[in-house]
Amino acid sequence: MAIHYPNGKAYESGKQTAEDAVNYGGRGMTLEAELNASNQYYRAAKRAVIYKKPTPIQIVKVDYPQRSQAVIKEAYFKTPSTTDYNGVYQGYYVDFDAKETKNRQSFPLKNFHPHQVRHLNACLEQGGICFALIRFVTLNRLFVYPVSDLNRWWAESLKNGRKSIPLKAIETAGFELHPKLQPLIPYLDGVDWLIKTKRGTENG
Amino acid sequence: MAIHYPNGKAYESGKQTAEDAVNYGGRGMTLEAELNASNQYYRAAKRAVIYKKPTPIQIVKVDYPQRSQAVIKEAYFKTPSTTDYNGVYQGYYVDFDAKETKNRQSFPLKNFHPHQVRHLNACLEQGGICFALIRFVTLNRLFVYPVSDLNRWWAESLKNGRKSIPLKAIETAGFELHPKLQPLIPYLDGVDWLIKTKRGTENG
Repeated sequence: MAIHYPNGKAYESGKQTAEDAVNYGGRGMTLEAELNASNQYYRAAKRAVIYKKPTPIQIVKVDYPQRSQAVIKEAYFKTPSTTDYNGVYQGYYVDFDAKETKNRQSFPLKNFHPHQVRHLNACLEQGGICFALIRFVTLNRLFVYPVSDLNRWWAESLKNGRKSIPLKAIETAGFELHPKLQPLIPYLDGVDWLIKTKRGTENG
Repeated sequence: MAIHYPNGKAYESGKQTAEDAVNYGGRGMTLEAELNASNQYYRAAKRAVIYKKPTPIQIVKVDYPQRSQAVIKEAYFKTPSTTDYNGVYQGYYVDFDAKETKNRQSFPLKNFHPHQVRHLNACLEQGGICFALIRFVTLNRLFVYPVSDLNRWWAESLKNGRKSIPLKAIETAGFELHPKLQPLIPYLDGVDWLIKTKRGTENG
């Protein structure tokens, strides 16, 4: 069964054009566009001020043509030191990364970089609300998943345990989001849940 | 009199090499390098998790040479929508921008972009700790200056009033920082002061 968004458009996660790859570094394309729209909605509605950070670029060569703006002629994508999204919501610091998988049964931990997990935990220690936004593309299911729970699977994988989080564990420990018209991804519902249950603010 | 930092190096604000201009978009070079070192120190000491956001770049053309990483061949600097620095400190969302002037008597408001002032106020409304870090380069004086006070001068300038903030007003409403060895810019002292006096969290 094809699952459709409230706007009638089927969700197209696998599609990625060459242009998209250029603009977004090829990472989490459709999810990113939907999150950008959701963040814009939340800002306009004065619900929260959350942005995606720009992709870090190592600039090597810049030309300064006369009477015009600087042109970057050689640059490379850098590995980000942090997660992609952060901001403020009702006095809380919010920090998350968005990830997708085409798997149906589990979420592969290789989607996380060690520095991202470290960063989320460092923010958690400072009292931030930290989570992963995980989409099961094929199932069209989307979860706010607390870092405290991610940590348990991450630790197990480092001890040569399983390298993925079962969907069942994410269903149990996470908060399922249901797409709306505005915002497309109502992830603040999950943030409210994290605040209420303290799951995003404690190492569990 | 030349004022020296604790490491014995004179403060060199005006110097900016071509390479610096390339790496940092030519904005607030020395102050940026000192803040990056200070943020690194605060993170290592687990005092706070605060980063400079990457400079936003509009990518136009990317080459994908075989067997090697993507090379950006044409790109342009974009105007950021937010301030440069944000993160989390003891449960508080911290957001600020760093600015320098060579003036001795006042800080010109043209150093702020309207979208930066809007962003700082939007974060303030959400309960963030928001300020400008202002350096008087020639005087070698550095202040944490609350957005609530900046707003008064900003509003006056829009009503065709004066276009700068007198140093005296910044001395009165701000918190002066004194460079240390570690961190070079101990701006969390000013954040503590903002939290204690609520100057960073209220529209004054």
